[in-house]
Amino acid sequence: MSAIRLVIGNKNFSSWSMRPWLLLKQSDIAFDEVSVPLYQRNTAEKLGPLSPSLKVPALIHQQTTVWDSLAICEYISEAFLDGRGWPASPRKRATARSVCAEIHSEFPNLKKDWPMNCKAVVELARPEVIENEIARIDAIWSCCRRKYGVDGDYMFGRFSIADCMYAPVAISFHNYGAILSTEARKYADTLLANPWVREWISLAQAEQDIQAPMGAVSNM
Amino acid sequence: MSAIRLVIGNKNFSSWSMRPWLLLKQSDIAFDEVSVPLYQRNTAEKLGPLSPSLKVPALIHQQTTVWDSLAICEYISEAFLDGRGWPASPRKRATARSVCAEIHSEFPNLKKDWPMNCKAVVELARPEVIENEIARIDAIWSCCRRKYGVDGDYMFGRFSIADCMYAPVAISFHNYGAILSTEARKYADTLLANPWVREWISLAQAEQDIQAPMGAVSNM
Ligand SMILES: N[C@@H](CCC(=O)N[C@@H](CS)C(=O)NCC(=O)O)C(=O)O
Ligand SMILES: N[C@@H](CCC(=O)N[C@@H](CS)C(=O)NCC(=O)O)C(=O)O
Repeated sequence: MSAIRLVIGNKNFSSWSMRPWLLLKQSDIAFDEVSVPLYQRNTAEKLGPLSPSLKVPALIHQQTTVWDSLAICEYISEAFLDGRGWPASPRKRATARSVCAEIHSEFPNLKKDWPMNCKAVVELARPEVIENEIARIDAIWSCCRRKYGVDGDYMFGRFSIADCMYAPVAISFHNYGAILSTEARKYADTLLANPWVREWISLAQAEQDIQAPMGAVSNM
Repeated sequence: MSAIRLVIGNKNFSSWSMRPWLLLKQSDIAFDEVSVPLYQRNTAEKLGPLSPSLKVPALIHQQTTVWDSLAICEYISEAFLDGRGWPASPRKRATARSVCAEIHSEFPNLKKDWPMNCKAVVELARPEVIENEIARIDAIWSCCRRKYGVDGDYMFGRFSIADCMYAPVAISFHNYGAILSTEARKYADTLLANPWVREWISLAQAEQDIQAPMGAVSNM
């Protein structure tokens, strides 16, 4: 057993689980995956001893349990990466933390009506509230790329937590037909070409069908 | 003009503005307050040059703009407090970041139906979804206090970002009549006795009446 355990949900639906999983994989940190099927009668019972919020993801490292995707990414960066989960320059790091906090707490309509479903490729309706949220994410992606993308393909050049936080969004935008600016589209393509993102998607697609959460986009 | 500007909304309603304001005040860091009245026809126009998300709070320090409460608190801790915004022990820090990320992204029903309003003291209905969210926050407060409270009154002993993130919740719980366990109640009382929390509340109460946001609890 590895010293690190990451508790995650179904790969097909659990966008929050994907985020720290991607950071660990991309950083070449060994860990055991503990998979808890969501939306079953015994899900809460199984999560009880593993995650204080009864949600996934949670990370268990020696005596420490960290939960909630953003806190887990901060922990991974501090404990295993000497801070390299974030860009090195204070200014880039401040912007990276801002855009991560924004996706973590905002975009209620995308979270409700465009939830990640790796198996579903289907054009979804884009009412104004959805278009506005897509436009804001487009602005974040293209603005960061124009400012910081010179030395690399990721949002702040080198791969960072910001890319983990937005990877599930790139999957949804691709699968549901969001229309993006050229710069934003290039960034989404970079994310979708990342080997670990591709690995997550193919593991998700190989999962046995389970009941979709309420309001989820059904599989095609 | 100070080197630091904090852009905030109306003190009566803007719980997110309160969080970094409290961290700066409690840490004795000088800053200029830039107040932008929310929910006016020209709010977005005024916020445009100050906050990329068009929301408050935002912090401007030299060439750096940071937005979103949690990212701003991380920035203040790194740039001005040598990390002391968080508890010093890695394990406590991991827990503190977890509970902060949780309040930042979760509790949709409290955010919608029990939004902070410093002027309104009124017993609100507690349907099951609200009771469940209150119970989860009660568990966070009382559990942290039992584990870490020995050396002080705050959530992790010494004052930290976690106390900033939960201070507006203590105001709402007090004003709207949440029923708490003894440990959680003690913690809420500590927050409400903090001089800067009291200062925020009295400045909020002295504000000229402005239109309440949609769904806000009306003033008594
Ligand atoms: N704010 C949390 C969100 C976690 C979350 O909502 N997880 C979902 C799966 S992606 C979950 O555990 N759902 C099960 C449930 O709510 O019972 C985070 O960032 O980790
Ligand atoms: N996730 C943001 C939330 C910021 C937020 O919702 N701010 C409100 C006031 S408390 C706001 O700016 N509302 C104006 C608007 O939405 O137009 C944070 O943590 O800072």
